[in-house]
Amino acid sequence: MSSTTPENKTSKDYYFDSYSHFGIHEEMLKDGVRTNAYRDAIMQNKHLFKDKVVLDIGCGTGILCLFAAKAGAKRVIGMDMSDIIDKARQIVADNGFSGVIELIKGKVEDVKELPFGVEKVDIIISEWMGYFLLYESMLETVLYARDRWLAPGGYLFPDQCTMYVSGIEDSEYKKEKIEFWDNVYGFNFSAIKGDALREPLVDFVEGHQVITTQSKFLEIDLNTIQPGDLKYMKRTFEFQSQYQEYCQALIAWFDCVFSRGCHKPVHFSTGPFTEGTHWKQTVFYLENDLPLNPNDQIKGVIEISQNKNNHRDLDISIEYSINDGTSIKQEYIMR
Amino acid sequence: MSSTTPENKTSKDYYFDSYSHFGIHEEMLKDGVRTNAYRDAIMQNKHLFKDKVVLDIGCGTGILCLFAAKAGAKRVIGMDMSDIIDKARQIVADNGFSGVIELIKGKVEDVKELPFGVEKVDIIISEWMGYFLLYESMLETVLYARDRWLAPGGYLFPDQCTMYVSGIEDSEYKKEKIEFWDNVYGFNFSAIKGDALREPLVDFVEGHQVITTQSKFLEIDLNTIQPGDLKYMKRTFEFQSQYQEYCQALIAWFDCVFSRGCHKPVHFSTGPFTEGTHWKQTVFYLENDLPLNPNDQIKGVIEISQNKNNHRDLDISIEYSINDGTSIKQEYIMR
Repeated sequence: MSSTTPENKTSKDYYFDSYSHFGIHEEMLKDGVRTNAYRDAIMQNKHLFKDKVVLDIGCGTGILCLFAAKAGAKRVIGMDMSDIIDKARQIVADNGFSGVIELIKGKVEDVKELPFGVEKVDIIISEWMGYFLLYESMLETVLYARDRWLAPGGYLFPDQCTMYVSGIEDSEYKKEKIEFWDNVYGFNFSAIKGDALREPLVDFVEGHQVITTQSKFLEIDLNTIQPGDLKYMKRTFEFQSQYQEYCQALIAWFDCVFSRGCHKPVHFSTGPFTEGTHWKQTVFYLENDLPLNPNDQIKGVIEISQNKNNHRDLDISIEYSINDGTSIKQEYIMR
Repeated sequence: MSSTTPENKTSKDYYFDSYSHFGIHEEMLKDGVRTNAYRDAIMQNKHLFKDKVVLDIGCGTGILCLFAAKAGAKRVIGMDMSDIIDKARQIVADNGFSGVIELIKGKVEDVKELPFGVEKVDIIISEWMGYFLLYESMLETVLYARDRWLAPGGYLFPDQCTMYVSGIEDSEYKKEKIEFWDNVYGFNFSAIKGDALREPLVDFVEGHQVITTQSKFLEIDLNTIQPGDLKYMKRTFEFQSQYQEYCQALIAWFDCVFSRGCHKPVHFSTGPFTEGTHWKQTVFYLENDLPLNPNDQIKGVIEISQNKNNHRDLDISIEYSINDGTSIKQEYIMR
């Protein structure tokens, strides 16, 4: 299989459980774009970390805690729900940081008090981003930690996220993923086609497939965004076609920046024009291919809401029109 | 990532849940080696299916039920725990087989009586095989169904499975998967290395990596095997080195045959020498590479037991020696 859909995480238990296996951490650690960006942001800004207290939300194997400790932090506190934290403790000890790094197993919201007698922290680091940035909704937990423990003027690593959307040519893969269900070994499996259309695909898109300009449709400033803002977001987008082509799908991706306080901002992208990350891109297939001509104007609205049954799932609706023509709306769910 | 480990299925709930997502069925349906073998075995043996009653254990999207109905079965009963069966019902209706195929949602062991007033079935079809053949232990359920519902002289599709083991050269990938943990961005993550060694890797091995002969170590005849036999199995193996090489891992795979009653047996392999399947091969890394010379004799014992905490997990131990030298034993767990 060349494709991957996000794993089917239907229960909260399973959500945390899935992080107990080392395989998912291996994948994240081996994502060099991701891990090197955190390392660079931390190691190139020792002036922020030296003798400071740092909190890592969702610390996993502890790699970001180790970077922070190596950058000179006085105290580093890591928190994670998953059993992987037992391994992280061993790793911290094996690397001689037991006196500096303290790891807490459990739900962030359930933590009674911080270790080392710490009341406020100077920096919160977290790799909370999910597919389509917001899938899994871990950002809420980071904001909870910010509001409870971050000292006034403290730093968030990263602190800026931006989402983009554009149109792609993807006829071959759409056949394989969507039209496949029309004829499965001679049988009509179209009962499943609707599900396949409704579920965004997390997969690598090649840069040359992008046939439109890109539209920045969402900016998140972690310093100021409020938890309530995440429940429902409605944003507009607008991009232009660059070719005479059929457009089979819209894609979305995000960039992250470590900026406030940094000597020089550290930036990484999960888009189709740079080295791939484990977040890949998110592909929203359109029910009907859009015939596009150069300079056609595509305008639209994206709505993102936390699913009512499982707040880690995302309901996404995309409405769009070409050159101010009839609007078409499609509903998606990421789960 | 070019590699995949079996998903971490720690609870029974999740086990069934994971099959509710269409993605896993898409992967299985698109496994042409698998699905074509079932189709051929059924469609080329219409003499067995014509006007007969067929039971499909773990029917998923219903594809095997549809093959059986198309082959002339009078009644086809499919059973599955997972929500995918709701889609399967729609698919059955969409293909005009509502009067022939009846689908039952639930645990096979909980079924009170069969529909259509059926007491015994003529054929049981099932695609029950997991990674390393036995992972997920669905075979137990098939044997339960056999003992309860299969008419005397009835057929099992497939009815023969054989497992093989051989040695491979895999130094590069072993570095990437095992030695990786020795130095993760400059830190010692060897705490995770033990887990990585203990967990067999499910991945594609290329035929040219196989540096020994192969040893058939397990044969299962579904017509006669007893459920109790699956709790613990101990088998010997013996193969010869063909090259002067280092051996980093043993691999195992299985073949399946539809034989009894068939006009001509239909066979498929999940080995490294034929077209790949979604089962790939199972790779057991050795703690220390084995230096092999041509004609070295490798003898050993494989023990397979259902894990005490989760009976769908497998404890596997492999003990081996070269040319009757010192024995080395390694323990693995598939979960």
